[in-house]
Amino acid sequence: MTTPHSQRQGEFALIDELAARLKPANLSDLIVGIGDDCSAIRRGPFIDVYTTDTLVDGVHFLSETVDWEDLGWKSIAVNLSDIAAMGAKPLHTLVTLGIPAGFSANRLNSIYTGIDAITSKLGGPVTGGDIVRAEKLFISVAAVGTIDTRLTEHPHPMLRSSAIPGDVIGLAGSIGASGAGLEFIKGGKPVPEWAQVHNRPIPGMDAGPALRNAGVRCAIDISDGLVADLAHICERSNVAATVELESLPVPAELLLTLPDEWQRLALTGGEDYVLLFTCPEDVFSSAESTLETTLTRIGWVSERASAERNVTVVDAAGDDITPAQGGWDHLSE
Amino acid sequence: MTTPHSQRQGEFALIDELAARLKPANLSDLIVGIGDDCSAIRRGPFIDVYTTDTLVDGVHFLSETVDWEDLGWKSIAVNLSDIAAMGAKPLHTLVTLGIPAGFSANRLNSIYTGIDAITSKLGGPVTGGDIVRAEKLFISVAAVGTIDTRLTEHPHPMLRSSAIPGDVIGLAGSIGASGAGLEFIKGGKPVPEWAQVHNRPIPGMDAGPALRNAGVRCAIDISDGLVADLAHICERSNVAATVELESLPVPAELLLTLPDEWQRLALTGGEDYVLLFTCPEDVFSSAESTLETTLTRIGWVSERASAERNVTVVDAAGDDITPAQGGWDHLSE
Repeated sequence: MTTPHSQRQGEFALIDELAARLKPANLSDLIVGIGDDCSAIRRGPFIDVYTTDTLVDGVHFLSETVDWEDLGWKSIAVNLSDIAAMGAKPLHTLVTLGIPAGFSANRLNSIYTGIDAITSKLGGPVTGGDIVRAEKLFISVAAVGTIDTRLTEHPHPMLRSSAIPGDVIGLAGSIGASGAGLEFIKGGKPVPEWAQVHNRPIPGMDAGPALRNAGVRCAIDISDGLVADLAHICERSNVAATVELESLPVPAELLLTLPDEWQRLALTGGEDYVLLFTCPEDVFSSAESTLETTLTRIGWVSERASAERNVTVVDAAGDDITPAQGGWDHLSE
Repeated sequence: MTTPHSQRQGEFALIDELAARLKPANLSDLIVGIGDDCSAIRRGPFIDVYTTDTLVDGVHFLSETVDWEDLGWKSIAVNLSDIAAMGAKPLHTLVTLGIPAGFSANRLNSIYTGIDAITSKLGGPVTGGDIVRAEKLFISVAAVGTIDTRLTEHPHPMLRSSAIPGDVIGLAGSIGASGAGLEFIKGGKPVPEWAQVHNRPIPGMDAGPALRNAGVRCAIDISDGLVADLAHICERSNVAATVELESLPVPAELLLTLPDEWQRLALTGGEDYVLLFTCPEDVFSSAESTLETTLTRIGWVSERASAERNVTVVDAAGDDITPAQGGWDHLSE
């Protein structure tokens, strides 16, 4: 249910309005409704999760510069990442293409190649879709994931709303490289290997279920940026969070290549599609010992003190260096 | 998986290409893949079905003339109709809105009102979605339906590919009124009550499961038009079909109001969103006695004789009056 790119207060306000405006789903088996990475419904022994994310030309990518295979990959990746954030495995996807007049068959073919590549690697094969004429290209994907409740002691989806004061905040993977990739593209420079995750993000399909199995109850994927996504957790959980800059897992190449930019990119760059989570310290230790993905403690959850701000970033000296959370909002442009 | 409006050979060719191009879904529980009204996957005691349909401004509606509440209704209706065509009940929906800059909150609100109205009446409550900036308004809905296999002797979804020579062809409801509604709109005239199904189609949510429970194996919803949708069945089932014009269930008001147009509208108008099905005569009789919806025999299925044409319409004198199946194709315009 998230879209890539950072700081979408306008969109979030609209989604909140939508959630408030529509009648609540009257479904006895509904486990999670509007407002998290996915909705979730009990289906016999399974809990299935559902998400949809759309990429639009001129908003989420530029047809002038995009690699079409990468675009196909990314259109699926952003959805699979929402499934991972619930602790679920991908089941299948539906792909809708909005195609402008004259869009070449070669480009379509490349998009399919990218879709094939990621679903072959990470799951979520395409079982259907729709093709419509559109003014500008868009790719809208609906994805279904699943948790087999018979195989785990912790079948409940991880939620944005489950953070508790005293939790440690963790990251499953590193951040900042995707934002760096975008900087290279904007500057007309080739994207180095270490920043290719911007073009082909690799969602945490193993980490998500493994964190849930370890007992983690709260997670979100990093799409809008660390500070913004952590703020979503704080908002839904009614807690505050503190992040230690020095603890952030950032690729060495980013530190070396963009020494003046890494901090901003790590905090607000977004689109890393790694998992941000919170849990009690003992759960973190247990998860650390079972996950293949490297986990990093980056801060802690506390009682919410102010209605204004709920995420604080501190540097090694303990100084508050929290960046503004506002910024790019594709609905207000 | 269908879009409204008639005769979409270009789109069908693209969907076929997509189906052939993508690797087949390697899912042990997959029951129906790409190419029918929905895909279907076994989920414990349920068979869940999945579809997605998108309405785009300038293609499927005109923002200058559309009633926004009706648009919200229709965006869900076209998806629920695909679920009915499989013989499933709606479970829930995801709604993606592509919104142009400056789109008014009042209009958005009206769209939500229409969505609320149909989901309250027919099911499929919204559990999530996405909102993105777009050049032209679009509404993309993904819908999930379900068959509880414990409650029926006939749990298998109805398919386009299950027609068998000797089957009778049936319609659950009447056709032509939606096409008439569009004629009134095009002519700048008010749409009479009997043609309001064009603006607020009422998919066969009761008829679908009831037909499946009665043992019907083959169905499709009338979106492209009777001749075109029957041709889809024939294509997938590798059979031929004959329709008797005199047998078609057409509203009396249509016959009276548009005496020179009803035949064309009934055969090719489309968007009636009633169910077209085929089954052995004894199944038809049994269905007739249990369904509340009026069923009408309109023709029969036979061996396929020609690769060229598989649907024939005959009048009372037995003369062949089959209309051309080509026509409007929103991808080739």
